[in-house]
Amino acid sequence: MAAVWYELKHICKQTGARYGILHTPHGDFETPIFMPVGTKANVKTLIPKEIEEVSDGLILANTYHLWLQPGDEIIRSFGGIRGFMQWDHALLTDSGGFQVFSLSEIRKITEEGVEFRHHKSGEKLFLSPEKSIQIQNNLQADIIMSFDECPPFHATKEYLKESVERTIRWAKRGKEAHQYPDKQALFGIVQGGGDKNLRKHCLEELQKIDFDGYSIGGLSVGESKEEMYEMLEYLSTIMPKDKPRYLMGVGSPDDLIVGSMNGIDMFDCVLPSRNARHGTAFTSLGKLQVKKATLKEDKTPLDQNCDCFVCKTYTKGYLNHLVKSEEILGMRLLTYHNLYFLKNLMKEIRKAICEDRLADFKEEFFEKFGYNDKKAPDGATLE
Amino acid sequence: MAAVWYELKHICKQTGARYGILHTPHGDFETPIFMPVGTKANVKTLIPKEIEEVSDGLILANTYHLWLQPGDEIIRSFGGIRGFMQWDHALLTDSGGFQVFSLSEIRKITEEGVEFRHHKSGEKLFLSPEKSIQIQNNLQADIIMSFDECPPFHATKEYLKESVERTIRWAKRGKEAHQYPDKQALFGIVQGGGDKNLRKHCLEELQKIDFDGYSIGGLSVGESKEEMYEMLEYLSTIMPKDKPRYLMGVGSPDDLIVGSMNGIDMFDCVLPSRNARHGTAFTSLGKLQVKKATLKEDKTPLDQNCDCFVCKTYTKGYLNHLVKSEEILGMRLLTYHNLYFLKNLMKEIRKAICEDRLADFKEEFFEKFGYNDKKAPDGATLE
Repeated sequence: MAAVWYELKHICKQTGARYGILHTPHGDFETPIFMPVGTKANVKTLIPKEIEEVSDGLILANTYHLWLQPGDEIIRSFGGIRGFMQWDHALLTDSGGFQVFSLSEIRKITEEGVEFRHHKSGEKLFLSPEKSIQIQNNLQADIIMSFDECPPFHATKEYLKESVERTIRWAKRGKEAHQYPDKQALFGIVQGGGDKNLRKHCLEELQKIDFDGYSIGGLSVGESKEEMYEMLEYLSTIMPKDKPRYLMGVGSPDDLIVGSMNGIDMFDCVLPSRNARHGTAFTSLGKLQVKKATLKEDKTPLDQNCDCFVCKTYTKGYLNHLVKSEEILGMRLLTYHNLYFLKNLMKEIRKAICEDRLADFKEEFFEKFGYNDKKAPDGATLE
Repeated sequence: MAAVWYELKHICKQTGARYGILHTPHGDFETPIFMPVGTKANVKTLIPKEIEEVSDGLILANTYHLWLQPGDEIIRSFGGIRGFMQWDHALLTDSGGFQVFSLSEIRKITEEGVEFRHHKSGEKLFLSPEKSIQIQNNLQADIIMSFDECPPFHATKEYLKESVERTIRWAKRGKEAHQYPDKQALFGIVQGGGDKNLRKHCLEELQKIDFDGYSIGGLSVGESKEEMYEMLEYLSTIMPKDKPRYLMGVGSPDDLIVGSMNGIDMFDCVLPSRNARHGTAFTSLGKLQVKKATLKEDKTPLDQNCDCFVCKTYTKGYLNHLVKSEEILGMRLLTYHNLYFLKNLMKEIRKAICEDRLADFKEEFFEKFGYNDKKAPDGATLE
């Protein structure tokens, strides 16, 4: 039996969205699922008990950052990331590829791997498919990723072709290097930029190698929402039905709904934490700039429809004060609320799938959240 | 009955230190007590439930900061600081005087009050004894402070004399302005720099006005420990025995012990939070620089003798990683532990007083913590 497997339970008659169960060594999870990001072996500002409250029990950590600090061998000696950060539930790591391409400006790609400079110290470093898998073996997540190149969505056809062929060869090498296939599921990553034929080719070749799941990389990297949604719609028709599908780095409320409509099972994104850092809260009526002056005497909770600890305890006025005062507690409370909001959104999405009404749910949510307001296309009606 | 009153229960035969009970409208507290600082209506990074765990239930907030943001009238409309931050226990506010003198570089002192510039915006502001009390009436703490001038310890005799006389006149005006003496206890602040005669004069004049308690200001402002301890020893012989004695802004472990030996009942200090921000932890064996390289593979808790949540959950290695990575969670966990350490230290001090062995306890603590190590006079043996 594979370390992780997917059980399809229901397909939404209105949209084709999938409701299923992701079985992992550290728990079974209803999908579609949103995974909070715990980049450096902690979900920013939160302790494990709180992460339990605002997630479904499956989180992500970043291979690149943990390889550089404190190092994967050290984390292995603590019992992997789970032992290191005292997280008793399930975990996924990425391959480090995305960070190599997004954080490091100086890099050289060869068949062997990528040579690059540390994003802060400038130290010369090298990452290859084998090295990435070795690090992830040490980090001991339940689900790990193939090392890939993440090319720009609008790269030339020639570049995309060359890049995708290399990503396929790297995926094969990674699978061969994987030491614990019975404990850690390995996902292949579908690349190909905006080129549907290349995406299809990449997926077919990855399926020949045979992975435990398939991730979609290289989306939400600067292309328009229309371009991303068109590609998701296309991919939904060709992705294998018996394996989990993970859309990497995507997690705004609209993308979670549209992604689910296109058969995506897993999502992750730093948006809830990043929004919190910038004083922005998700609410059932749209995004809210918590520090805006009109809230300073507001005695109501952040979101009347939310039953999270923050909404049950604090007023908008107090949160406004914390954010204006740049108090860390403000960031902590908004991070908690924003993650809880997405956890709840995913629950509603799963319910709508099971009731064959995800398209209706989308319309209702978009209308309430403000996505249908042309003046505020990002749902920012409350700003 | 006064809003707050002090009940002396025992005097340490070895030192003269006092064990007593401070009765307040929101709880009775064993003294000597350490009060965590919640400057801007929050103890940095922590929620009320955690503040309960790491304090005895009495905390401090700063009048200056809350007057400027969000404003005392707004806080009043939320039910005072306690309602604003959802703190169900006891609270003390300072007068704002110290911040006016320490944060604002441009200021003009007149008989009426102090004109100064906002420490960030440069806006022109004015604080007087009446205004300070009015703000503190709105903030609704159980214990409030007279508006005073905090002169340098080594100011000239002429300046100190003029300043102390004004502080006495301001104290009288503040008492007259106080609207809720039955709900909020008002403390007078003994100033006088390093001049014992002036300190005595100030105390005598304040006693004539008659306050619910007496604070000692203008210590730990740059003078040597010897100078501070000598003044505390002197003051211990003249302070009234039936009223609580509060040593303002003092809270390193050695000062808490020596302060208690000199009859102090109440302390506050930002040190636990500031140390946490700088990656320094209090431990039973001295101060620890959590980010030092030798800890990165350390699988033991921060302090083997501590039973706080952080020590029961995390390893030094993980905390080392958080601090090195500048993760906010690291600051949060160290703040929690450092406050818990001081809470526990005060418990041990009170026990030693009741057992008439505070001098012995001091020797044992100083030896273990490293204060007796001449090479590390601040107890920094583990750095």
